[in-house]
Amino acid sequence: MTLDDLPLRDDLRGKQPYGAPQLDVPVQLNTNENPYPPSAALIDDLARAVRHGAATLNRYPDRDAVELRKDLADYLGHGLTARQVWAANGSNEIIQQILQAFGGPGRSAIGFEPSYSMHPIISGATGTRWIEAARDEGFAIDPEAAAADIRRHRPDVVFLTSPNNPTGTALPLDVIEHVLRAAPGMVVVDEAYAEFAREGTPSALALLADHPRLIVTRTMSKAFAMAGTRLGYLAADPAVIEGLLLVRLPYHLSTLTQAAARVALAHRAELLGTVDALRAERDATVDWLRGLGLTVADSDANFVLFGRFPDRHAVWEALLERGVLIRETGPQGWLRVSIGTPEEMAAFRAALEAALEGVIK
Amino acid sequence: MTLDDLPLRDDLRGKQPYGAPQLDVPVQLNTNENPYPPSAALIDDLARAVRHGAATLNRYPDRDAVELRKDLADYLGHGLTARQVWAANGSNEIIQQILQAFGGPGRSAIGFEPSYSMHPIISGATGTRWIEAARDEGFAIDPEAAAADIRRHRPDVVFLTSPNNPTGTALPLDVIEHVLRAAPGMVVVDEAYAEFAREGTPSALALLADHPRLIVTRTMSKAFAMAGTRLGYLAADPAVIEGLLLVRLPYHLSTLTQAAARVALAHRAELLGTVDALRAERDATVDWLRGLGLTVADSDANFVLFGRFPDRHAVWEALLERGVLIRETGPQGWLRVSIGTPEEMAAFRAALEAALEGVIK
Repeated sequence: MTLDDLPLRDDLRGKQPYGAPQLDVPVQLNTNENPYPPSAALIDDLARAVRHGAATLNRYPDRDAVELRKDLADYLGHGLTARQVWAANGSNEIIQQILQAFGGPGRSAIGFEPSYSMHPIISGATGTRWIEAARDEGFAIDPEAAAADIRRHRPDVVFLTSPNNPTGTALPLDVIEHVLRAAPGMVVVDEAYAEFAREGTPSALALLADHPRLIVTRTMSKAFAMAGTRLGYLAADPAVIEGLLLVRLPYHLSTLTQAAARVALAHRAELLGTVDALRAERDATVDWLRGLGLTVADSDANFVLFGRFPDRHAVWEALLERGVLIRETGPQGWLRVSIGTPEEMAAFRAALEAALEGVIK
Repeated sequence: MTLDDLPLRDDLRGKQPYGAPQLDVPVQLNTNENPYPPSAALIDDLARAVRHGAATLNRYPDRDAVELRKDLADYLGHGLTARQVWAANGSNEIIQQILQAFGGPGRSAIGFEPSYSMHPIISGATGTRWIEAARDEGFAIDPEAAAADIRRHRPDVVFLTSPNNPTGTALPLDVIEHVLRAAPGMVVVDEAYAEFAREGTPSALALLADHPRLIVTRTMSKAFAMAGTRLGYLAADPAVIEGLLLVRLPYHLSTLTQAAARVALAHRAELLGTVDALRAERDATVDWLRGLGLTVADSDANFVLFGRFPDRHAVWEALLERGVLIRETGPQGWLRVSIGTPEEMAAFRAALEAALEGVIK
């Protein structure tokens, strides 16, 4: 018996499961994790919260995660309240719920590529037709061109990723406003990497008050250093969240997830305290790569896209041989490295220098 | 701004979010939870496991949850291995993944109602056309009638719930085999309540070896007393799981969920030690309700469906006024009570007696 013998959907046949290789190597710079583990104080609080929650673990969790949403609203600021915030198991589940409510069969979604590859994948899984639009040469989005794309295709959902994965590019607010004016449906600004943006880069949260069809998504997997907790969230008009309640799986967010996310939010000074160091390391990495004569995209995220290599797979493999795992993603010829600790970045630099010598000579 | 003003999918307009009221009353017998909280020893182990997992909480979880799947396979027995087991955030997410891979737009699913109401809801959310077939008067499924329904509609997915929610009815294996022979696609046997079945009630797990299109789903929310952990799982041919990998959201199962479920499995003697007491309490509840002259469905689950009331809402409300929350579900005129502790069931009996007197007189 193989998968070919089963009545799998035709649109899934021949596809491969999504995901970077999970390899056990010394230096893991491939999934944009924050390299700094939680402190002993945070772990103590987490264990305490889990003990508290475990006393009623035989009961279902709060289906609407109200306390967690209050804490998330408080963190986001901009005058937001719990009614404007929603949470799920990672921003992937947030995106899936958005597409189930506002996309789905007979509807379409558009993205400006290269961008987060889960947007088209989850569109496919929800029966939403995917429309691929393009960024310009420097990975920016031209507001006039984007508005023209939207007027031509009339998508039900528009995805804007800012800072963009895998390029690191942040969008100015006027691009987002331009898209909001052109879009006939919902506009999702995926801000998974917002906390890493350079000084003066505004968040689309500032536009929420005037735009009820705008959804801003966030995650605790990156700056918050909580990838293992799987907590994604969004801010939007309360009516948007009423729509999501119609498609969310009841009790989707466990008691433990709700508790852990609240502990992380209570410790946000510690967790976000690593962001400045990661930004500095990122900027130094950009400079160093440019110093090698490579082409490097400006980055407002915790990763850097660099290239272009005639055979990027050879470079990726040469790094892996030296114990450094980065990501073979983005347009042909480019590679993406997540920003790790100073020691990990030193290992990356040494491995890349050796690899380039080996590949070039 | 209201939801009506937003571009919500037409098939969702006017719908209400799924879910029993989460009311804070003394006696909660409405969502089929196990009333017994975890022991101090289990909570200690859980806190220890969370401390261990928290040390790498900045990293993504094992995307394929391999160790957890090994433990689940070991628990299920029947010679199953990790390759035949898959897990997700509650059996709702399991069902959603099954429908995304084997149902979806242009495809259909059938169920025999009254049954678990999430089957049609998740079918709708995944764009799968829902076909409603009927159980007989005693809530059993007639194998010939079911096979005829399936041959007529040719559904891509068949749902059989055994023991059935909200009726408590278990299916003999020959009914499932009859359905497997007739079904052109996948057959899902939802065994959320399997551990509560009366002696001699077989599990569909026994049929897996001979039926690669069979999927048996389970949960840790009921007998395992872990509703707050949100862990659903399934057993099936490894090829089925390869199909689910194409639609599962990457890293869907958090580090904490994987750890907590493994702790619960290690403590299964304790957790499942409550099952015998709950079964005895259930059988006593059935007898007592019949003694009142009520109609009561035979139950292999941890709840009892009883009726029939000309105005069931009045009875439900009269119980709630006395601090006892049960579920207004099932066909018109019926009510469902989850089996609680002896004290909770005594409160239920007292409240029902008083309520019936009040309603009848």
